[in-house]
Amino acid sequence: MHLKIAMLGYGNVARALARLLLRKTETLQRDYDLTFSITGIATRSRGSAINPQGLDITEALRVVDSGDKLDMLHQGPPLADTFAFIEACPADLIMEATWLNPQTGQPATDYVRAALQAGRHVVTANKGPVAFAYRELKELARQRNLGFFFESTVMDGAPVLAIGREALLATTVERVRGVLNSTTNYILDSLEQGVSFEAAVKQTQDMGIAEADPTNDLEGWDATVKTVVLANVLMGADLRPADVDRTGITGVTTDDAQAALAAGERIKLLCEAVREGDQVRASVRPTRLPLSDPLSQVNKTSSAVTFETDTLHHVTMIEGDTDPTTTAYGMLVDMINIARGRHLDPRT
Amino acid sequence: MHLKIAMLGYGNVARALARLLLRKTETLQRDYDLTFSITGIATRSRGSAINPQGLDITEALRVVDSGDKLDMLHQGPPLADTFAFIEACPADLIMEATWLNPQTGQPATDYVRAALQAGRHVVTANKGPVAFAYRELKELARQRNLGFFFESTVMDGAPVLAIGREALLATTVERVRGVLNSTTNYILDSLEQGVSFEAAVKQTQDMGIAEADPTNDLEGWDATVKTVVLANVLMGADLRPADVDRTGITGVTTDDAQAALAAGERIKLLCEAVREGDQVRASVRPTRLPLSDPLSQVNKTSSAVTFETDTLHHVTMIEGDTDPTTTAYGMLVDMINIARGRHLDPRT
Repeated sequence: MHLKIAMLGYGNVARALARLLLRKTETLQRDYDLTFSITGIATRSRGSAINPQGLDITEALRVVDSGDKLDMLHQGPPLADTFAFIEACPADLIMEATWLNPQTGQPATDYVRAALQAGRHVVTANKGPVAFAYRELKELARQRNLGFFFESTVMDGAPVLAIGREALLATTVERVRGVLNSTTNYILDSLEQGVSFEAAVKQTQDMGIAEADPTNDLEGWDATVKTVVLANVLMGADLRPADVDRTGITGVTTDDAQAALAAGERIKLLCEAVREGDQVRASVRPTRLPLSDPLSQVNKTSSAVTFETDTLHHVTMIEGDTDPTTTAYGMLVDMINIARGRHLDPRT
Repeated sequence: MHLKIAMLGYGNVARALARLLLRKTETLQRDYDLTFSITGIATRSRGSAINPQGLDITEALRVVDSGDKLDMLHQGPPLADTFAFIEACPADLIMEATWLNPQTGQPATDYVRAALQAGRHVVTANKGPVAFAYRELKELARQRNLGFFFESTVMDGAPVLAIGREALLATTVERVRGVLNSTTNYILDSLEQGVSFEAAVKQTQDMGIAEADPTNDLEGWDATVKTVVLANVLMGADLRPADVDRTGITGVTTDDAQAALAAGERIKLLCEAVREGDQVRASVRPTRLPLSDPLSQVNKTSSAVTFETDTLHHVTMIEGDTDPTTTAYGMLVDMINIARGRHLDPRT
């Protein structure tokens, strides 16, 4: 099989994906009889390019790394905007990794909808479309026999959602608990060690973990959106981020964190979705966890999720040492799973 | 699809599976359009029965629970032995959960081979066939388009092997580390708390975790066989249990465990398989782990495995609160995955 791939966004994750595709070209052909070409890349600030014969990936990386615009590689009439790109770019699959507004899910949700309507499979690393429009987009994909996969939206490339698809079968997920936001987890670690809240925030910014405006992390929005993805995909819920009982970490002090530790506990920004009758109730809030809880042991930028089902009582997955490549890898796996038809399963 | 199922063994796990199949009958039909009948059960000490129209599962459970022999439910000519049962029982799928000799892998390996040769899919919870004959049995299954799945051999129903099949794609697993044996882990916990080795062993026997003769656990054989399964299935190795550098826990004292703890470490029976050039080297031995290692946090009868790959740097899965149902659940998931054709994938 040959896949023509269009990429939306060409930031850290998308460029890591481009490099990973280059590195894995031979493996994909040998193990999955899968070849590919990247027929287009659309970005917000770095220009856009379509080449129906396939762009030279190395050249596209070089252009962006050197600060030039991708437009210099474009063939064909000018493109009005990203929607025009989605229509015009000859692609079987769109890899979506654009910027997210976690309070609206846009513009990514509209991009994914347009891509599916144009008959493209979609792989996204973007939580927005899944948190704001999962049922609609899934149904749209199903009607057209298209794949809509998004493993990298929660815990990067760790197979949290693949587990739901392949291993949590004929079971009821009763509860999902997680520590899912790196910035807040790193800050809480620092508070335990006696660092002030302000200094801890600055530290995560200096390290490139937190953004210049860290509000979405500190106020729990990022964790909330991830919680909604887990609840909707693994528990059949139909929540939106506004439905989540959300408290950020701005009220947590160095004293709080150290007092918890002295009592044999650790404060974590706990994400939780619990089945209650026909409903799923979700919350994100700083919570003291005993050291015996595996989630209490999630340090620095690691993340983790615990599943409780009516058949498997406690299964926890922890991911450590993440970087843009681990996120990109989740997208690569999604691509392979679409190529081998995993999306055609009625229960997927 | 209707699956005719034959069961080999009717001990704790197989009976938990029978109960789980009863409990999930409606779910299987609704979610996977899957119905089933149990056309036969063969045991070593509780007799055997075949009924081509399907045994009454509740009745079969009652017969065994009350100490009677299954023979009273048998229809047809007498059966000479288990191999005759495998031939005679009309089944699409054989669920194998018999007793294991971890130093030879028999008789389970011969049962699985006979089942595949007779054209049956095989689901086994038995480590022996995978540790002693993985490549041969996998190839036999492949030639006949049959499923040969065994999720429950390592960490019960936790989807350790499903992750390899569905999520560790186009990647090289460089190292697998695990804490995989409950009995030894429980004993090491007790040593830390000041219990003597002899008292700790007796405690696990009283709790029903350890067998009357706990040699296979204490000398590391059970952990070794699981390590071989992981190495062969996830890393492409071709090891046998005798190839593993194996040290049990009989040399570990209360003082050792407490000294480690005082130094901020914990002794775990660490299972490890490491890629070294074209080879995979495997070992099982008591190892001091720092508290920052998620594997050090595996308590009591929990178990865990960490994968290190060239794309995902550290992914750890921990399973807690296990019982025969969690093991049976892995077999149920294997059955569903065979019913929906997962075994037909060339890379599965």
